[in-house]
Amino acid sequence: MRLNLHTDYALRILMYLATKSDQATVDEIAAAYGISRNHLMKVARSLVELQVIEARRGRSGGFALAVAPEAINVGFVVRKLESLEGFVECFDRMSNGCPIAGACGLQGALNSALAAFLEKLDQFMLSDLIPDPNRFLRQLNRADQVPSSAKTRPMAA
Amino acid sequence: MRLNLHTDYALRILMYLATKSDQATVDEIAAAYGISRNHLMKVARSLVELQVIEARRGRSGGFALAVAPEAINVGFVVRKLESLEGFVECFDRMSNGCPIAGACGLQGALNSALAAFLEKLDQFMLSDLIPDPNRFLRQLNRADQVPSSAKTRPMAA
Repeated sequence: MRLNLHTDYALRILMYLATKSDQATVDEIAAAYGISRNHLMKVARSLVELQVIEARRGRSGGFALAVAPEAINVGFVVRKLESLEGFVECFDRMSNGCPIAGACGLQGALNSALAAFLEKLDQFMLSDLIPDPNRFLRQLNRADQVPSSAKTRPMAA
Repeated sequence: MRLNLHTDYALRILMYLATKSDQATVDEIAAAYGISRNHLMKVARSLVELQVIEARRGRSGGFALAVAPEAINVGFVVRKLESLEGFVECFDRMSNGCPIAGACGLQGALNSALAAFLEKLDQFMLSDLIPDPNRFLRQLNRADQVPSSAKTRPMAA
């Protein structure tokens, strides 16, 4: 069982932007995490569609959070990005070839377990994922960017 | 996000054996579900190790439940078989290259969500997955056991 990389990267982008007082480019985020720029760009577009980040145009354009980190629910983001249709074969109505579909209680059991998983994530806001923005930025080896404001208000609006 | 096929097949084997009054061979189970015999054999061995099924030797040998379906906990089986170390990169201590490991709260949030997932599955016993064994067997195209099934059974075994 594994979280889709798309969702994983989305949460990383959001955490990165939450520690920035200004926007950040995808190049900057890709370099910070050491992950594919092209993949990150696709994920950023998904987050723009969800209206949790926004694209800033112009020479110093990039992405920034569209709302405060305290207003972005982790469960919401995971629900929107994570595909659960293929969690087991019988979840996918289009390609379900399991001969016991409809006669076994596994689908119901797994659905309730997945609901519990998502309900737990609903209890977390993006701000909860960055308990110490300074330490977060230090670990990204970007000491030059740690603003003095990070202690009190590290979040971009 | 997807349940490992190994776990999926394990639950299918258990459900199959729970509807049988006698043992079943891997060939029989593989034919019933239309899935790989070799893969099923590996899964059956895992279930023997977990002591929820047992191998019967001899000419009519096969596998049978080692305990009653009411005594086999679904959460136990999933916990034992499902690998969660790679759920996200930072769960795997051996190959964790994420630069924010230790500074972000995502691991804690996801761990609590996975705990909620498993705790929900702990509420189900194998017997709960087969609310109607007759219907289950009918759908597996085993008309010899339930002769009136021919009309209602659209699936190939």
